[in-house]
Amino acid sequence: MESLHLDLEEEKMPRINSRASCGRDFHCCPDISTAIETACRAGYDFVCLPLVNPRFKREFIDGPAKNRKCALTRSDMCLVSQDWNSLVVGKTSPWLHLDSDHYNTRKNSELALKEELTWSAHLGLPAVLMPLPNGKSINLAQCISEQITSSYYQQQYWLQVPLVSYADSCDPVIEGVDSNMDGYEDTWQWWNLFRSLCDSNKRLGVALELTADLPSSEIIDRWLSEPVKAVIVSTSLFLTNHKGYPVLAKPHQAVIKKLFKLEAQVIITGQDRHPEKTIRAYQQYIDHLWQTQEPLDTVSQFAKGYEDFLQSPLQPLMDNLESQTYEIFEKDPIKYSQYQKAIYEALKDRVPLEERNTKEVVIMVVGAGRGPLVRAALAAAEDIGVKLKKLYAIEKNPNAIITLENIKDEEWKDSVEVISCDMRDWEAPVKADILVSELLGSFGDNELSPECLDGTQRYLKEDGISIPEQYTSYLAPLMSSKLYNEVRASKAERGKPPEAPFEMPYVVRLHNCATLAKPQPVFTFIHPNKDDVIDNCRYKSLEFSVDQDSTVHGFAGYFDTVLYRDVTLSIVPETHSPGMFSWFPIFFPIRVPIMITSDSIVTIDIWRRCTSKNVWYEWAFRCGGQISPIHNPKGRSYTIGL
Amino acid sequence: MESLHLDLEEEKMPRINSRASCGRDFHCCPDISTAIETACRAGYDFVCLPLVNPRFKREFIDGPAKNRKCALTRSDMCLVSQDWNSLVVGKTSPWLHLDSDHYNTRKNSELALKEELTWSAHLGLPAVLMPLPNGKSINLAQCISEQITSSYYQQQYWLQVPLVSYADSCDPVIEGVDSNMDGYEDTWQWWNLFRSLCDSNKRLGVALELTADLPSSEIIDRWLSEPVKAVIVSTSLFLTNHKGYPVLAKPHQAVIKKLFKLEAQVIITGQDRHPEKTIRAYQQYIDHLWQTQEPLDTVSQFAKGYEDFLQSPLQPLMDNLESQTYEIFEKDPIKYSQYQKAIYEALKDRVPLEERNTKEVVIMVVGAGRGPLVRAALAAAEDIGVKLKKLYAIEKNPNAIITLENIKDEEWKDSVEVISCDMRDWEAPVKADILVSELLGSFGDNELSPECLDGTQRYLKEDGISIPEQYTSYLAPLMSSKLYNEVRASKAERGKPPEAPFEMPYVVRLHNCATLAKPQPVFTFIHPNKDDVIDNCRYKSLEFSVDQDSTVHGFAGYFDTVLYRDVTLSIVPETHSPGMFSWFPIFFPIRVPIMITSDSIVTIDIWRRCTSKNVWYEWAFRCGGQISPIHNPKGRSYTIGL
Repeated sequence: MESLHLDLEEEKMPRINSRASCGRDFHCCPDISTAIETACRAGYDFVCLPLVNPRFKREFIDGPAKNRKCALTRSDMCLVSQDWNSLVVGKTSPWLHLDSDHYNTRKNSELALKEELTWSAHLGLPAVLMPLPNGKSINLAQCISEQITSSYYQQQYWLQVPLVSYADSCDPVIEGVDSNMDGYEDTWQWWNLFRSLCDSNKRLGVALELTADLPSSEIIDRWLSEPVKAVIVSTSLFLTNHKGYPVLAKPHQAVIKKLFKLEAQVIITGQDRHPEKTIRAYQQYIDHLWQTQEPLDTVSQFAKGYEDFLQSPLQPLMDNLESQTYEIFEKDPIKYSQYQKAIYEALKDRVPLEERNTKEVVIMVVGAGRGPLVRAALAAAEDIGVKLKKLYAIEKNPNAIITLENIKDEEWKDSVEVISCDMRDWEAPVKADILVSELLGSFGDNELSPECLDGTQRYLKEDGISIPEQYTSYLAPLMSSKLYNEVRASKAERGKPPEAPFEMPYVVRLHNCATLAKPQPVFTFIHPNKDDVIDNCRYKSLEFSVDQDSTVHGFAGYFDTVLYRDVTLSIVPETHSPGMFSWFPIFFPIRVPIMITSDSIVTIDIWRRCTSKNVWYEWAFRCGGQISPIHNPKGRSYTIGL
Repeated sequence: MESLHLDLEEEKMPRINSRASCGRDFHCCPDISTAIETACRAGYDFVCLPLVNPRFKREFIDGPAKNRKCALTRSDMCLVSQDWNSLVVGKTSPWLHLDSDHYNTRKNSELALKEELTWSAHLGLPAVLMPLPNGKSINLAQCISEQITSSYYQQQYWLQVPLVSYADSCDPVIEGVDSNMDGYEDTWQWWNLFRSLCDSNKRLGVALELTADLPSSEIIDRWLSEPVKAVIVSTSLFLTNHKGYPVLAKPHQAVIKKLFKLEAQVIITGQDRHPEKTIRAYQQYIDHLWQTQEPLDTVSQFAKGYEDFLQSPLQPLMDNLESQTYEIFEKDPIKYSQYQKAIYEALKDRVPLEERNTKEVVIMVVGAGRGPLVRAALAAAEDIGVKLKKLYAIEKNPNAIITLENIKDEEWKDSVEVISCDMRDWEAPVKADILVSELLGSFGDNELSPECLDGTQRYLKEDGISIPEQYTSYLAPLMSSKLYNEVRASKAERGKPPEAPFEMPYVVRLHNCATLAKPQPVFTFIHPNKDDVIDNCRYKSLEFSVDQDSTVHGFAGYFDTVLYRDVTLSIVPETHSPGMFSWFPIFFPIRVPIMITSDSIVTIDIWRRCTSKNVWYEWAFRCGGQISPIHNPKGRSYTIGL
């Protein structure tokens, strides 16, 4: 079980914002206080304003406006700091053209941009909005990258990118930009070039410009793996409903609702086209979209606040779980009912109807924790009417034993025997008909269920049943600059190599990411294991066909398990057990993102390696000529202790 | 000037080996002492032996040889340690097949390989030789990578790769392997896949197998950028000359001579096909090839022992050069004669024949050091018969001033005025006709010649001449896992980001590397600079077409300069001034090697950035979808102080 093992208190869990955050864009702004006051009165949360007076073009090198003698823009004293910090997003001048081939234009733009960014930092604006030019932003990237490196102030830079751009409206052919949609350019490439040059810095965000035409849903979904901070909606996109109010077409609504999941803010731009309803009507409509979002499902509710939060996988064999951890997982509404069903079916097959009064069976719960599986087994036996000779509850955690003993005294009495012992060491007095365990991790075998169950099968009858009877791990290539940045920000532990954070898997609620291909099965384990020589080492090579230009930041891992016959559990997206929250996916990062063009084959090679003391994974990726090193050789960065 | 600035003593410089290192390969070896004795007596330096008895195939999982009860191989006591350490290269068993699809074969091979490698480490063999299978060595890479990570003993692993492999002789189509030569497979891909998976570990080497057919010279030259430790030559490749001795065909000779430059050792394999001349004849022939190598040119001799050695570029503006450094550079046989020629030509143009007795000119040497340019100027003036009104020698290093003053007293007397001053601050009493300087670095402007000369042109006459009058830097993409490993092995200085070693250029004698395209010009500076506003910032984007599958590890930088009219200096390979050793190339590394397929376009964007205190470069690379971050933003890892 692997989802949250944090100090998790329901009261502390962040709530969903009660309303949409909406900003009003101004092309020019004669008086800033009036502008803010009007916008706020109309229900807006912030405004977007030009950083400098649009009429005051400066020229540093050459040109008519060289050495202009007047203030660049309004004074910093027209607002108090707190308002600058929370109400204003600055916009750079529209005439800047940092990648011009013309030296004077480029140089003037560089110097003017620098001036504007310095000013916005002086004001303490939370973000600066600037257009990302059509596929050619090399020199802009250099300037922004330099600005990020030299300022400690954590201002964000929002790059404005249209969802759709017609190829014929763009500059003469620009290298590196695919137009793989008929007549469209892939604007994600513009962003990808820019952010890659800026080393995927966390201070960069996307401001997606909603366009009249929309691209395919795959292209929209790819944006969900990017740091989309805002969606810019022009008043010209709004239709008018029969009451005269502005509304958006269904496909536009859908895009905005998708982006709401990333907590994107909406910026309303353009003149008021519904003056009798006032500018407030647009904000109200956006808030209406917010309020009419689908309610969160159980799992999303449970995971709220932990999206994209990296956790080290549990090591329940080496560490003892805490009471709180048991408590969270025992609440899963699905898992234990499936277990109960599986035990019921197993008992049904094991004891034919005519022997129900005579045949007694032995069930052993190995790794009983605080008893949920014991409960499930007792309930199943009662339901089907099978007599249990004895139910053994084996548990190595002495703290959990205290709980088990207490329940036994109060409730289970002699029907249950509590054994305080590591399941691998126990000398059982009898052999079991059914062995029940819940030792699975997010990647199936990663909490060493194979090794543990191999160690118990000597006290399972020759024809006995293991629940689960088999489990399989899955992998799929994943794009997420968010997770890449999270991994990169972690420091290697003392004594580990510097690349260690990239050489271990993480349990994580995947959110700001895109899965680039369908998950494929990796390792399967079957219990009881009837092989002559048991070998839990594994090696698998998987090929994924990826059909969009994208960047692979790692692989998402899942598992499914057959508890008994057709009773299963799954966290593989396509077959996820509805409502089950005990496991989040696992994430295998890679040291260097692999950039792929559409219709590439991405290969992952993954090994499960074992010694008598440890188990670990090693993995490597290939795509075309790009070949990663094998990650975590000899478990140098991460092992799971036996 | 930038080549060696080390503690350089001629006595310490490594000498060229006086003979070829040659080994004898044995397919089996009934008695090891006899084998070694025979080989040594026949002039060989080492032997290659199977690590275990070829008849003793072990099976760990299954098969007839499971649980074989006998010693694996000969005892470690048949040789003394020193002989094991220096005379024996171990060979792994030929039946190992680590990438078999058959589980038992793979598992048996894994366990047997591990046993053999452990044994070879126990013996302390310097290297283990193993065949690199045809394009599919994923699992072998995992085993070797694990072995490298777990053993501290610095044993080398030599992977045997044929120079040519016919595509039809190989396994059914293997993904990732191009056969871009008609009928041949690109065996470099086999190696590239393997070493990339092993993270280009320094302990991996190539043992190139000479084949009857040879690939194109481009393909051979690409191997020169790899760690080729040995070349394996079969006796079957030898022809017989008219005296009955074994000799190689010219093309084979050429390959071996190329590989000698990397200090590759030769291994003679196969039966003695010239028994009347004995096996010694092959060794004698190889040594003959060694002895008949072309003698080293001046520059190579000068650089001997410093191949691929990374040096930080000089910072002569911030640091004062040492006596030794001056001494080395003053010895350059070409540089000062070219300067003298340039000054001669400038004087000739400046003073028409009819004015030679009347017109007097002022020459200023800015950055005079210990006086070589002063000497050149005096000699040129004497040659042409022009009267110097005064020669000013301006120098900021007080230690060099002592030398200059001494020479003035003894030799130059009143003709020369020594000025102890930073050239940028000097208040000159007159203006110069000719300004002479030698402020160029390996990348032209990287020792801040532009900034220095801009600071001096106020005391150059309106129509005065600067020598040099212009200089241009050049870049070319470079493959060199050697340099990549050298950079990777360096630690960032305190206070610098961990990627700092990849964000600074290095002066280096390029040796174990391949240039992947012709160098292209980058930045040009012209003196005196007549621009209204002087801007020494630069930005350039270059595209290189690379026609072989390869890996870009960085860019090699060069420069050329026009001293005056057609008098030039160059370190660009195509136009290198013969015999000039004052500058080695410069190397700009990249954080992540870019793997490219043939006919790719590699783009480099490079910036020269300036503030009033510092100058630095930033650079980024792109190839297809692969985009590097901008290196050294804001000079965070490396700047040149003004």
